[in-house]
Amino acid sequence: MDPLLRLTAAARERTAAGLHRTLRSRPPGPWLLDLASNDYLGLSGDARVIEGAVEAVRTWGAGSTGSRLVTGTTELHTELEHRLAAFTGMPSALVFSSGYLANLGALTALRPRLIVSDQGNHASLIDGCRLSRAAVTVTPHADVAAVDAALTGTGDAIVVTDAVFSVDGDLAPLRELHQVVRRHGAILVIDEAHALGVVGPGGRGAAYAAGLAGQPDVVLTVTLSKSLGTQGGAVLGAPEVIETLVDTARSFVFDTGLAPACAGAALAALDVLDAEPDRPERARERARRLTGIARELGLETTSPAAAVVPVIIGDPHDAVRAAELCAEQGVRVGCFRPPSVPEGRACLRLSARADLGEADLTVACKALATVKEDSRPYPAPNAGATRR
Amino acid sequence: MDPLLRLTAAARERTAAGLHRTLRSRPPGPWLLDLASNDYLGLSGDARVIEGAVEAVRTWGAGSTGSRLVTGTTELHTELEHRLAAFTGMPSALVFSSGYLANLGALTALRPRLIVSDQGNHASLIDGCRLSRAAVTVTPHADVAAVDAALTGTGDAIVVTDAVFSVDGDLAPLRELHQVVRRHGAILVIDEAHALGVVGPGGRGAAYAAGLAGQPDVVLTVTLSKSLGTQGGAVLGAPEVIETLVDTARSFVFDTGLAPACAGAALAALDVLDAEPDRPERARERARRLTGIARELGLETTSPAAAVVPVIIGDPHDAVRAAELCAEQGVRVGCFRPPSVPEGRACLRLSARADLGEADLTVACKALATVKEDSRPYPAPNAGATRR
Repeated sequence: MDPLLRLTAAARERTAAGLHRTLRSRPPGPWLLDLASNDYLGLSGDARVIEGAVEAVRTWGAGSTGSRLVTGTTELHTELEHRLAAFTGMPSALVFSSGYLANLGALTALRPRLIVSDQGNHASLIDGCRLSRAAVTVTPHADVAAVDAALTGTGDAIVVTDAVFSVDGDLAPLRELHQVVRRHGAILVIDEAHALGVVGPGGRGAAYAAGLAGQPDVVLTVTLSKSLGTQGGAVLGAPEVIETLVDTARSFVFDTGLAPACAGAALAALDVLDAEPDRPERARERARRLTGIARELGLETTSPAAAVVPVIIGDPHDAVRAAELCAEQGVRVGCFRPPSVPEGRACLRLSARADLGEADLTVACKALATVKEDSRPYPAPNAGATRR
Repeated sequence: MDPLLRLTAAARERTAAGLHRTLRSRPPGPWLLDLASNDYLGLSGDARVIEGAVEAVRTWGAGSTGSRLVTGTTELHTELEHRLAAFTGMPSALVFSSGYLANLGALTALRPRLIVSDQGNHASLIDGCRLSRAAVTVTPHADVAAVDAALTGTGDAIVVTDAVFSVDGDLAPLRELHQVVRRHGAILVIDEAHALGVVGPGGRGAAYAAGLAGQPDVVLTVTLSKSLGTQGGAVLGAPEVIETLVDTARSFVFDTGLAPACAGAALAALDVLDAEPDRPERARERARRLTGIARELGLETTSPAAAVVPVIIGDPHDAVRAAELCAEQGVRVGCFRPPSVPEGRACLRLSARADLGEADLTVACKALATVKEDSRPYPAPNAGATRR
């Protein structure tokens, strides 16, 4: 009757499968080289962004003190919503306390009868599908024809896709998806989490780059925690969409408003993007360099559309070992295992940052060379390694 | 084929039913009297808490830069987890970016086959039930016998309840629920959102007060956005529970870690609670005073267990009007309408704060007297009001 016994048993199974995770806390100083964070523009530690947060805390306090509908909407939240809408070219915006909750809100409050969801979509979109009570059709990755087929004969439908996929780093076929969506009278929800601040002119995102900004049947979700360097999320769309979310999105209505520090930091980050519109292209260029390095070493990777560069390893134990090898050389990389990625596709996830220099790329090359070296079969059974 | 038309039609229906919401942004200065926020201890604007946030931003940056499992765990997060565990008397803690996501994580990752959920539970717990894919039995409010009956013959079950209910402000029968849970080998999940910092000795929460802290079959969820004055959430429980969440809670694994500003503010708020252990009782005393005022005026209310005082109005239009009357006198109160409360139970929600003075209570009394006056039937049809 010990209810924890089954948790212990399940933990043992995860460990055996190489799926156990350990939280490691980092000290304040930087790593030799961070290729793991989503701080694509290097703004989390930018002095201007930090001062934006500090000023907001001093003016508005440490919390928003309530739901956005009660006391949690400050003038700072409203200003941030106007700025996010202007930046992405969308009519209006609604700020949530996290990108996860923004995605849950968008997919549930629009009450679709059907959601067509790319199989590579982020967990928060999948959870939004589950919570929506809609019929859900999962289509093969980036397969526009499959989306078209799934929509046949239905109304009140949503098609949802990541703009840039979080691990593979590729771009969704947004223009083609929108043509299909328009033909069926559906709504296209695009998660710009890994695209905002990186893709499109000045980092305005993948929808903007595809000419979809401001279309009435397009809804964007964004996060403030990646290129903008802080925390929070937003949904952007037509006024009808935003008003629907204000009235009915449970993850908006029943959640405390975003902390002023995060709203202030996000506003300061948007100022930096206005002042330095070439920063996004710098991040993309560094991603292409990292891909080139991995390819030359003979490691499997993809063609990055934004700042995310995966290096496919395969087995989860091997992926952990590869990440540890990088760490031993002072390079922090992401290590993604099921359920974050499909079975057999455990990988390192390298994220480029606009502020990576030549010396950083040399260090990255050295670490990846060690990974490649380690992945070769050992020449003799007594070579001192027992891993295989 | 305009997909926004049905949104417009639904909005028209909500407006007719008195269920339309308008976001109003507040300026930096305080209201004459805030009785609407969840800032029960008045810590959101406390200089020590603000400095905690500022120092954290300056040391750690504006964001945590990634998932807690990748780069989003700083030493500050770990320190906050140790402090929250020590404060509530629980073995270990895991910090999430919001209380909403902490609740989703707790209810989904423990993979129960059955969840027994109080009908008054918060939306985030209800969404957790929906996401869990467990069988869900909703029991009448605070009905221990119904919980007992629902558990018969099942294993791997969770019983979940708010400690203090968010609108009615009453306390769950935690001791009795735990006896039932223990007998059935289930797990009791208690959401301390409105209890932490307010209920129990020094504000250690309702589970602590009920002698349940540290029991292996008890899991707590808390928010950092109410009495601790900032943003974020946590789950507290046995190491087996926390390890399970680290490995499998989707709202933990796939979400950016809490912003350092919020972690720093929460740590500073815990310092204040240590230094001023009488602050929680001050909040509770002010709540009892507010209840007394409402009762003497002949308004319907409940007996507050913490800082939440509801004033039942009934019709949603009337509730909005009552809140506006309070606002005209400089008193900000919460206005809760369906779906936040059951049909016919629209209400004002007054929240007491530890720092309310006698003058504040006088102002509150005057505003509530106006609400009472307005709710009386008008003596003659030409009395100048057209509302009824």
